[in-house]
Amino acid sequence: MKEEKILLSHGSGGRLSHDLIKKLFLPNFVNDKLSKLDDGAILKTPGTKLAYSTDSYTVDPLFFPGGNIGLLAVYGTVNDLAMCGAKPLYLSCSLIIEEGFPLSDLEEIVLSMKKACSIARVDIVTGDTKVVNRGNADKIFINTSGIGVVKRGVNTSGSNAQVGDLIILNGPIGNHGIAILSAREGLNFETTIQSDLAPLNGLVNEILKYSSDIHVLRDPTRGGLATTLNEIAQSSRVEVEIEEEKIPLEEEVRAACELLGYDPLYLANEGKLVTFVSPHVAPILLEEMRKNEYGINSKIIGKVVKKSEGLVYLRTSIGGKRVVDMLTGEQLPRIC
Amino acid sequence: MKEEKILLSHGSGGRLSHDLIKKLFLPNFVNDKLSKLDDGAILKTPGTKLAYSTDSYTVDPLFFPGGNIGLLAVYGTVNDLAMCGAKPLYLSCSLIIEEGFPLSDLEEIVLSMKKACSIARVDIVTGDTKVVNRGNADKIFINTSGIGVVKRGVNTSGSNAQVGDLIILNGPIGNHGIAILSAREGLNFETTIQSDLAPLNGLVNEILKYSSDIHVLRDPTRGGLATTLNEIAQSSRVEVEIEEEKIPLEEEVRAACELLGYDPLYLANEGKLVTFVSPHVAPILLEEMRKNEYGINSKIIGKVVKKSEGLVYLRTSIGGKRVVDMLTGEQLPRIC
Repeated sequence: MKEEKILLSHGSGGRLSHDLIKKLFLPNFVNDKLSKLDDGAILKTPGTKLAYSTDSYTVDPLFFPGGNIGLLAVYGTVNDLAMCGAKPLYLSCSLIIEEGFPLSDLEEIVLSMKKACSIARVDIVTGDTKVVNRGNADKIFINTSGIGVVKRGVNTSGSNAQVGDLIILNGPIGNHGIAILSAREGLNFETTIQSDLAPLNGLVNEILKYSSDIHVLRDPTRGGLATTLNEIAQSSRVEVEIEEEKIPLEEEVRAACELLGYDPLYLANEGKLVTFVSPHVAPILLEEMRKNEYGINSKIIGKVVKKSEGLVYLRTSIGGKRVVDMLTGEQLPRIC
Repeated sequence: MKEEKILLSHGSGGRLSHDLIKKLFLPNFVNDKLSKLDDGAILKTPGTKLAYSTDSYTVDPLFFPGGNIGLLAVYGTVNDLAMCGAKPLYLSCSLIIEEGFPLSDLEEIVLSMKKACSIARVDIVTGDTKVVNRGNADKIFINTSGIGVVKRGVNTSGSNAQVGDLIILNGPIGNHGIAILSAREGLNFETTIQSDLAPLNGLVNEILKYSSDIHVLRDPTRGGLATTLNEIAQSSRVEVEIEEEKIPLEEEVRAACELLGYDPLYLANEGKLVTFVSPHVAPILLEEMRKNEYGINSKIIGKVVKKSEGLVYLRTSIGGKRVVDMLTGEQLPRIC
């Protein structure tokens, strides 16, 4: 490790995050569950297979168009469990609060978490609260972990993409990233761009009817679609090709990206998933997904072309083809 | 809720922590698992009973006599699972790191966690890393959650104390609290007081041979022995009586408490447990516990006297008797 200090990019979900994981965490916390680097671990317990995941939420601002840190802390972990092909059941909730934080804000966050748990049908069953001196944390950080039961026959993993698989995305990308950015910087666009924050376990439940043909399920959060596809391509050792014009993007998000110089492929999402599926089930799955409120705008955005060391190509709308790399550097700290 | 701001005492583990739990968290996150207020939740899954717990560690300083935040994050959650009568198996690990944190310190922490996992025989199977801007957090906070399998026949709970039960404590109290305090304030005592930080799952495993007679298992961490006994007395609706002269206390800790005006009953411990057991097994258990390296100084410190609304009395060494209340206010923020 040549860098001597932790940089913001170490938390970006991109290249430096992966370096940290591969050079420091994996060699020390060595076990077959962690090394898969999926959104959660799969645990075999007597009688059942469990999915287990954790995330700490440090989003700034706490309240943003389309959500708040409480909703994010519930849906974020629910989605990670869903991406393991699991039915999320139980969450833990651990708060780190800065001394002086308004109780009314805490109440609003807790009420949001209550609502989110009810919608996603999970229970917060254990928790912890720490308060640190003023200036030792910024307002509030929330960790949730979660446990879900993996459905029978499910065998999805980022390392399970097959040559020939079609890639389905459930809707437009970049909304969460731009929503946070605009809330933080006080930017005014013509319309307010809302975060896409949503629980995806219902949508996943629908598509897992076809579980034997679903090879990968992932939510492109930090680091965006580009980083997630790179992770999958590398884990599965395949070459992925996506088509620019097929990737759903709201007009306002496109405009904001042009204005601010962001590439939507690297913007965080909180209600999106990509799934790699056998080509013959793709049309049926697409139809099923479009029936769900969080899948109405689902599209096939690309395919797995061949075996390789793990590369992602983008066919641009003007007919070119370029490599899409993992996020390097940090686009927006504290995006989730 | 009359207070308008979060106070340090809301994170003390004492009175205000309980108020927050009872007024805000329990009414909103309502379910039978959370409402037991034990160190973890007990989950019935097909084929097995699981224990599930979480804690965020914000200890300051990160490195202290007898341990560091990495060891604490592993052993703390291992102990919470053990207190559920479970064999700890899997941990999650989520880091919130301040930009600029030295990578060498992170490496040292990770190596400590590796060592702790090996000693406690658990695996870190899933994780997350967030980096926040300089000044938005103080160095590093670590959340771990954990899953364990509850042994057959185990039915311990803070609400399960029985009239007649004897109370066993596994060794001297207050070391962790004084160790942190002295490290933080740069105090020099005649000898260095070490934290009692230790994994207790091995010791618990030994005593669970007698599980049908073990009614309560708890580790007196934040808020100290006094707060833990009050929690148990209230949950079980019993009156507890402990004897001052029976409570093990190292001479240096006693001296430091006198010097600094602390009551050891309220100081945090990280390698202590109290267990409430049927009187007829107490002598055998005591013998078993003393064979374990973390139970050599085990003692019977008191008993459950009668049914009541939940009170704890201390018989002092000069023959008096006084009520021992839950911790009010905050003794030492960021103790764990």
